[in-house]
Amino acid sequence: MASTTSRLRAIFNSASRPLIVGSVVGAFICYGTYKQQQKPIHAKTIMSTPALKPISFMAETITPAATLAENGNEMKSKMELFIMKTQAELCKTLEGIEGDKKFLVDRWERQEGGGGVTCLIEDGKVFERAGVNVSVVSGHLTAKAVAQMKSRGKQLEAGKKLPFFAAGVSCVIHPRNPMIPTLHFNYRYFEVDQDGEKQWWFGGGTDLTPYYLDEEDVKHFHGTLKKACDKHNPKHYPAFKKWCDDYFVVHHRGERRGVGGIFFDDLDTPTQDDVFAFVKECANAVIPSYVPLIKKHMNDGYGLKEREWQLIRRGRYVEFNLVYDRGTKFGLFTPQARIESILMSLPQCAKWRYKHVPVEGSKEDDLMKVLKVPKDWL
Amino acid sequence: MASTTSRLRAIFNSASRPLIVGSVVGAFICYGTYKQQQKPIHAKTIMSTPALKPISFMAETITPAATLAENGNEMKSKMELFIMKTQAELCKTLEGIEGDKKFLVDRWERQEGGGGVTCLIEDGKVFERAGVNVSVVSGHLTAKAVAQMKSRGKQLEAGKKLPFFAAGVSCVIHPRNPMIPTLHFNYRYFEVDQDGEKQWWFGGGTDLTPYYLDEEDVKHFHGTLKKACDKHNPKHYPAFKKWCDDYFVVHHRGERRGVGGIFFDDLDTPTQDDVFAFVKECANAVIPSYVPLIKKHMNDGYGLKEREWQLIRRGRYVEFNLVYDRGTKFGLFTPQARIESILMSLPQCAKWRYKHVPVEGSKEDDLMKVLKVPKDWL
Repeated sequence: MASTTSRLRAIFNSASRPLIVGSVVGAFICYGTYKQQQKPIHAKTIMSTPALKPISFMAETITPAATLAENGNEMKSKMELFIMKTQAELCKTLEGIEGDKKFLVDRWERQEGGGGVTCLIEDGKVFERAGVNVSVVSGHLTAKAVAQMKSRGKQLEAGKKLPFFAAGVSCVIHPRNPMIPTLHFNYRYFEVDQDGEKQWWFGGGTDLTPYYLDEEDVKHFHGTLKKACDKHNPKHYPAFKKWCDDYFVVHHRGERRGVGGIFFDDLDTPTQDDVFAFVKECANAVIPSYVPLIKKHMNDGYGLKEREWQLIRRGRYVEFNLVYDRGTKFGLFTPQARIESILMSLPQCAKWRYKHVPVEGSKEDDLMKVLKVPKDWL
Repeated sequence: MASTTSRLRAIFNSASRPLIVGSVVGAFICYGTYKQQQKPIHAKTIMSTPALKPISFMAETITPAATLAENGNEMKSKMELFIMKTQAELCKTLEGIEGDKKFLVDRWERQEGGGGVTCLIEDGKVFERAGVNVSVVSGHLTAKAVAQMKSRGKQLEAGKKLPFFAAGVSCVIHPRNPMIPTLHFNYRYFEVDQDGEKQWWFGGGTDLTPYYLDEEDVKHFHGTLKKACDKHNPKHYPAFKKWCDDYFVVHHRGERRGVGGIFFDDLDTPTQDDVFAFVKECANAVIPSYVPLIKKHMNDGYGLKEREWQLIRRGRYVEFNLVYDRGTKFGLFTPQARIESILMSLPQCAKWRYKHVPVEGSKEDDLMKVLKVPKDWL
């Protein structure tokens, strides 16, 4: 046991900032292995080894502790520990802002292999709907998935049952106050085995969807992401900012979903450790890029007009996610996918109005202008 | 002019029930030809020939009166007049129920050819959002459209710029009271020219989406549709009822959108006139199948719980329409399509809740049971 603990500690040290490393094994003990529950529980890990600062995940990891310890050098293990930590840090930060309401924690397992931890707040004072989802899944790629990957340039053989592994954290935060933007981020690691050879890549991004434009907010958000990118490659921010602007487009409306951020996929150079370090940097930038905006606006005044506008914009969010978002569509068409975790990205409430066009020169119109023609914010 | 009038009257007589035939030309006179307006007007046709009961369309026909008169023997003309009439009859019936609020009438033209008339009530006392749309469009099929049609068995040559014509009426009615079901119907006529040879077919259907199950309502609805079908072919109702059950499926939820009705496509036998007569019968059955349900339930009591359930079910309606509905997807991906008329089918408001499952044995659960396993109602 002691050796498992110390091995896990070593992996975790390599996978996270030093702040909250410690015994993960202690944490695992307080969970039985359980299948998905009808009534989700509020679960928190509790440290059992004193003298070490706890790693407090929201639930037990998906891969058993012993396996993680055994395969400590593998990226699969490092990524799983990292996304569990990212989830926990963010959930605790949001709970600190929300007040009394806590995240519902729903740990689920998947028949074919793996599972996930879905954390959600609904009907909060600050957060109308906020979900942070970790998933660690493995199995065999469907023909459709292989075709999709091949179309992106992956060297995969069609018609073969290829084993895969995917681990990711994804999150959408829909605050109640229309002056606080909606946030989305997702960071993921993917592996496919073909004839004993492993292909791997990382993907992800963080983007912002305001209802009212506060240029200072957007500059702070993009600035924080750029700083994270620049530490690794000065070409990343401009390239991934453009990728984001090009991806989050509600094509039939001729407008972007929001004011962008960064977005990338299929990242596999220069080395696995380098890309992992970059992805960690991006995920660690989520809280500093976004939480100040929540705190700045959570007590802003607003009325029914602003709420109505927020709900109409949330309708456009629904349109993007259901019509275009690659991840959502991939999920919906995957047999036995966990629909509730996929559609957690939708707002609690959305509205549609016939030919709603903001008054020229209004605050709503100011937003539309930057959604129609993306801007360089920095 | 007199000859145009009498020719149009003759076409119209052949295209409609005798009740409201009369001078359509008189009606056209009160409209200038106008492009789509920013602020839609409330337009009604006014008869200028006394002694004839008016055909009161909601706006001027899309094809000019003279052209309709000239091509009076063509199905294109007959169908256009019929769908204009269907729209007007339904809108007036609904206005009669709604009270003071009138349909907004928005006539629009399309660059490539044709246009439409969109009629909408939002924020009504009875109708939260109800839209009735006529479109009469022509142009050249996109490669994507040809591919879709070929996949359905049409003998079309890929890669050719084939001229097409389409005319249809479509409607979605979302009442405010959760005890009144949502109604959808759509009837359409399609023509494609290939090497001088014309292919044509009709498609359509009427289906019901209740929030609370009232078996009597569903029996009345299906019974009325069956009666209409049986007048033309006893095989139609069972075949088209099944087609409807198989089509309106929210696959990722494992549930149907509603309790079905009828649905068919590519109908081109035995003769064009026979199929047109059947389509007219179906469209004329809309009011008798649905309006009694509105009248029965419009004053039913309900509370926040029932409203919440209605909004959650409307979220599923949005999921079906944006993820699966062939017409919606075809529209969204068509360049220069009129998005507002396509997305008129969405409810004004929809909600999402994490893992919402009705209490076993509740009224909400009664509905879910028939959405999961479709029933024979008659």
